[in-house]
Amino acid sequence: MAGPSLTIFFLSFLFFCAISEASKCSVKGLPEVRNISALPQSNYGRGGLAHTTVAGSLLHGLKEVEVWLQTFSPGSGTPIHRHSCEEVFVVLKGSGTLYLAPNSHEKSPGKPQEFSIFANSTFHIPVNDAHQVRNTNEHEDLQVLVVISRPPVKVFIYEDWFVPHAAAKLKFPYYWDEECLEVEPPPKDEL
Amino acid sequence: MAGPSLTIFFLSFLFFCAISEASKCSVKGLPEVRNISALPQSNYGRGGLAHTTVAGSLLHGLKEVEVWLQTFSPGSGTPIHRHSCEEVFVVLKGSGTLYLAPNSHEKSPGKPQEFSIFANSTFHIPVNDAHQVRNTNEHEDLQVLVVISRPPVKVFIYEDWFVPHAAAKLKFPYYWDEECLEVEPPPKDEL
Repeated sequence: MAGPSLTIFFLSFLFFCAISEASKCSVKGLPEVRNISALPQSNYGRGGLAHTTVAGSLLHGLKEVEVWLQTFSPGSGTPIHRHSCEEVFVVLKGSGTLYLAPNSHEKSPGKPQEFSIFANSTFHIPVNDAHQVRNTNEHEDLQVLVVISRPPVKVFIYEDWFVPHAAAKLKFPYYWDEECLEVEPPPKDEL
Repeated sequence: MAGPSLTIFFLSFLFFCAISEASKCSVKGLPEVRNISALPQSNYGRGGLAHTTVAGSLLHGLKEVEVWLQTFSPGSGTPIHRHSCEEVFVVLKGSGTLYLAPNSHEKSPGKPQEFSIFANSTFHIPVNDAHQVRNTNEHEDLQVLVVISRPPVKVFIYEDWFVPHAAAKLKFPYYWDEECLEVEPPPKDEL
């Protein structure tokens, strides 16, 4: 008697998984108003990060802007990186440091400028400027709302500030876009 | 003795006004990190509204996205309007109602759909869909963070939901862009 029941259960399970997978990356049938706390949150393999795509290109069908909610635990932060889109940060909680190297015309970013960021502050990153945001407060989380243009984001990552721009490593799709966007990376890094 | 002192005072005052006016609409010399509470806030002649341009095209030199912080007192809201850019809302405080008429292919918006919006919710407005956000909670303010693409925004306003799309009134520059963008409106409304 257990055989057919188990088979039905297994097939139902497979069907459920297929539906879940499809709906996670499908913009059809989404509620118009969404509870941000109920949206998927993950660290996407990066220690200290909690990322939620609040309104996204791949998840919600946006074409011109994308909004993220990100929490960085003490000591964590973004990689040093650049992207050819605009980015605006609104700091909701905590504090930290913005490192910004506005030297896209030099060979490498070089030593960055440092700016204190704090709750209820805002800043934006000019297109293609190498930057890093870090929670440099030992005691509390840093929470930011991030807005980018031209989603999905295509990120060039630098191991340090003196890596030449041309040697920055392309990461595309970016961590949170990997599940819904499977593409072959181009054969060479682009500047 | 009072004559020259008064003249100097008056000239200094004029000079100070000129400097203030120039810096309010100039993106030069802005601090990289800005305290949102210290940014200009106004109702721009609209009852119940408090608007702050957190990161703007005219105020901060952005070209692809713009971010606003808006508070609506009970009973107030946006006009019924549409724009040919994307818009994302994040509700920070309070609650209210989104009215959305996704009928840009009909003659007029028609009776809108109604959605409850609440603290920690998000929603976006598809390009060119007529919509209105209202604080329908009698007891508390509604505070939202708004993201738009393609700034500065060009808004078409409807007196009611049955005004034909072609008769919606162009408002450009929009209320908070008027101080920094003085342009002649085009001779005819555009669809």
